[in-house]
Amino acid sequence: MTEDFKVTPWEVTGDIDYGLLQERFGTTPIDGALLERLSKYGDVHPMLRRGIFYSHRDLNQLLDGYEKGKEFFLYTGRGPSGNTHLGHMMPWIFNKWIQDTFGVPMLFQMTDDEKFLFKDLTLDDTRRMAYENALDFVALGFDPDKTKIILDTENIKSLYPIALKVSKKVTFSTAKAVFGFDNSTNIGSVFFTSIQAAPAFLPTEEAGTQVPCLIPCGIDQDPHFRVARDVAPGLGYPKPAMMYCKMFPGLGGGDKMSSSDENATIYTTDGPKAVKKKVGRAFTGGCVSVEEQREKGGNPEICAVFKYYFYMFEKDDSKINELADRCRSGCILCGECKAELTTRINLFLEDHQAKREEARKIVGDMAYGGFKWKKDGE
Amino acid sequence: MTEDFKVTPWEVTGDIDYGLLQERFGTTPIDGALLERLSKYGDVHPMLRRGIFYSHRDLNQLLDGYEKGKEFFLYTGRGPSGNTHLGHMMPWIFNKWIQDTFGVPMLFQMTDDEKFLFKDLTLDDTRRMAYENALDFVALGFDPDKTKIILDTENIKSLYPIALKVSKKVTFSTAKAVFGFDNSTNIGSVFFTSIQAAPAFLPTEEAGTQVPCLIPCGIDQDPHFRVARDVAPGLGYPKPAMMYCKMFPGLGGGDKMSSSDENATIYTTDGPKAVKKKVGRAFTGGCVSVEEQREKGGNPEICAVFKYYFYMFEKDDSKINELADRCRSGCILCGECKAELTTRINLFLEDHQAKREEARKIVGDMAYGGFKWKKDGE
Repeated sequence: MTEDFKVTPWEVTGDIDYGLLQERFGTTPIDGALLERLSKYGDVHPMLRRGIFYSHRDLNQLLDGYEKGKEFFLYTGRGPSGNTHLGHMMPWIFNKWIQDTFGVPMLFQMTDDEKFLFKDLTLDDTRRMAYENALDFVALGFDPDKTKIILDTENIKSLYPIALKVSKKVTFSTAKAVFGFDNSTNIGSVFFTSIQAAPAFLPTEEAGTQVPCLIPCGIDQDPHFRVARDVAPGLGYPKPAMMYCKMFPGLGGGDKMSSSDENATIYTTDGPKAVKKKVGRAFTGGCVSVEEQREKGGNPEICAVFKYYFYMFEKDDSKINELADRCRSGCILCGECKAELTTRINLFLEDHQAKREEARKIVGDMAYGGFKWKKDGE
Repeated sequence: MTEDFKVTPWEVTGDIDYGLLQERFGTTPIDGALLERLSKYGDVHPMLRRGIFYSHRDLNQLLDGYEKGKEFFLYTGRGPSGNTHLGHMMPWIFNKWIQDTFGVPMLFQMTDDEKFLFKDLTLDDTRRMAYENALDFVALGFDPDKTKIILDTENIKSLYPIALKVSKKVTFSTAKAVFGFDNSTNIGSVFFTSIQAAPAFLPTEEAGTQVPCLIPCGIDQDPHFRVARDVAPGLGYPKPAMMYCKMFPGLGGGDKMSSSDENATIYTTDGPKAVKKKVGRAFTGGCVSVEEQREKGGNPEICAVFKYYFYMFEKDDSKINELADRCRSGCILCGECKAELTTRINLFLEDHQAKREEARKIVGDMAYGGFKWKKDGE
C-alpha cells in the first residue's frame, strides 16, 4: 500500500488516491444503484453524479428508515480557524440540497474549542471567526426554522454529558491509532473527538428516542465518525450514516484548497480583482505556447481551472464534457477559460456576499439554545 | 525508595509513609514557624497542631499577600460517588475553619463527571449523589453569602474555556507520568484533570485580575494541583497555594476510610445502632484479654479508635495525651474507649443530621450560577 498521502482531520498531504482512501477507511462507494435510488427524490445533485460525494456508510439503511416514515436529521460542521473559502462551502451546498430534497432538520457544529486546541489561536479568535463563518453558512439559504448552529463553548452544557459518555468508551490507544496522536499530544486534543461526536447524538438525547443522523462531510473527517459509530450502539445511540466528499482542489493544483496558501484560495469575502488575480495565476493543463496548445490541446485532468468548473461552476454535464473536449482539442485556450471562470466565480460571490449581509439578521435566531454571538470589534 | 504504598487521586493502597509521600510529591512540611505564623489569626486548629494538615505549597506567599490586603479564596471539592463519610468531612471541617479565620469566599467543586468517568456509575447516579453530599457540606455552616457549590455538568460552560486552556498545556506524557495512566485509559479520564484545575482559576477569569487561591485537601489530590500549578503562570493565572492533610483512617485499621468497606466506614446518615456496631468491631491496639491489657497496656499508635479521637473527636490536646497515657498504662480498656467514642460520634451525627435537614433550604441558593439540583426520586 502506497503511503505517499496522508488524510486526517487536521492534515491532508500528498496526492490523495480516493479509491485507496476508501479502502483504508473502509467506507462504501456511492455506486450506480445508490444514485438510482437517490434519483427517486428528485434530480441527483451534480456532486453525486460526478463522484465528488463518492463514498458513504449506511446510507441505504438510512433511506430504508426514511421510506418507512423515520425522519433523520443532518449534521455537519466547521472548524472556525479563518475566513471561509470555496472549499468549505462545497459540502455545505450539498447539505443544503439534502435538506431541500428530504425536508429534514439540520445541526451545524462550529468547533471553536477544536481550533483553539489544534492551532495557535485564542478562544476569542476562534469565537469571532465562528460568527464570520456562520454568516457564510446561513447565506446558503438553510431553512431557518429547521436549522440550528452549535458553537461548542456556548453549547457545551448540552454537548458535555454526551461527550462524557463517548469518552468513557474510547481509550487513548484508539485515539492514537485513529488520529495518529502520540505522547506529546495535548490532553484537550485527545479528548476532542468526544465533542465532535456529541451533535450526532444530541437529537436522540433530546427526544429520548433514537433519531437517525446523516453526516455529509469531507472524507478527512471519517476518523472522528468511525469512533462515534463504534461507540454508538453501546450507548443506545444510532450509528450516524455518512456521505463523504473529496477535498475541494486548490488553485495551485494541489489536492485540497487550503488557507495556508492564500493566493491559491478563494475566500467568500474576496472582491472581483482578487479573484481575477488568483484565477489568473492558477495551475492549468495548458501548454507553454498558444501555438503548441492549438496543436496538441490541453489536459483538463490535471487543470485546477477545469476542476473549478467541475466541482462547482458548471452544473450541466453536457457542457462540462464539451468544455473538456474543447480543451483537449485545443479549441479553447487557458486565458479564455480563466476569464470565464473568473466571471462565474465573481457572479457567485456577488450574490453570496449580498446574502451574507442579509444573514446577519437571522444568524442570531439560528443559534442553538439562543446563545449570543461574539462579533468582530466587540 | 520503598514502593509498598500508592497514592493517586483514585487509589490509595498500602501503609502510607506521609514523610516519604511529601518527598515524592515535593511538598513542604507545615513546620513550627508556619504554625506560629498561623497562630496570629486565632487559635490554631487541632488538625494543624496534630500534623493532620501536615504539608503545603506556597502558604507563606499566600499569607504575605493576605497581610498586604490581597484577599484569597478557598477551593476544595468532592467526587460524588456515594454517601458522605467522616473521611470526607474532615478536610471540609478544616476549610470551614479557614473560612471563619480569614473571612474568605469559597468554591466547592462536585465532580460528577469524574466519578462517571472513573467508576461504574451513570451521570444520573453521580448527580443525585452530588446533592446528597452537598447537604453534608452545607450542614457544616459555611457562610452562605460567601460560598458557592459548582456541579461540573451544570457549570461546565464556566469551567470549559479554562479547562481548554489548561488542557492545551498538558501532554499525554505528563498525564501518564503524574496520574499513572496508560494506553488503556479512557480519553475522558485523560482530560479530566483540566476540569479539576478550572475552579482554581475561575475567580481570576471572572475578576479579570489575579485572585489568589488556597486549596486545603487530601494529599492524594496533589497530582492534579501539581499539573495546575505548572501550567498556571503560562496562562496568566496565579499558582494555587495548597494545604494537604493525611487520609482519615478506616475503622478496620487501614490508612484511609473507604466506602469499599462499609463496616469500617461511618456515614453521615448512619443511625446510633449502626455506629455502635461499627465502632464495636473496630481494629484496636488492645491486648487479647482484659488481664493482659491491664498488665501490659494497649498501643494507641496502631489503634483505629484512638485515631478517631485524635483526628476528630477530642479537640483538647491535654485530654488526648491523657487518653494515650491511660491506654498505654492499661487504665482504660478498649470497651470503655469504644463506648465513649460511640457516644461522641452519635452526638456529632445527631447534631449534623439536624443541620443536614436544614441545609435543604439553602443548598439551592449556594448553587453556582443558580443551577437546579437533581434530587433522589426526581
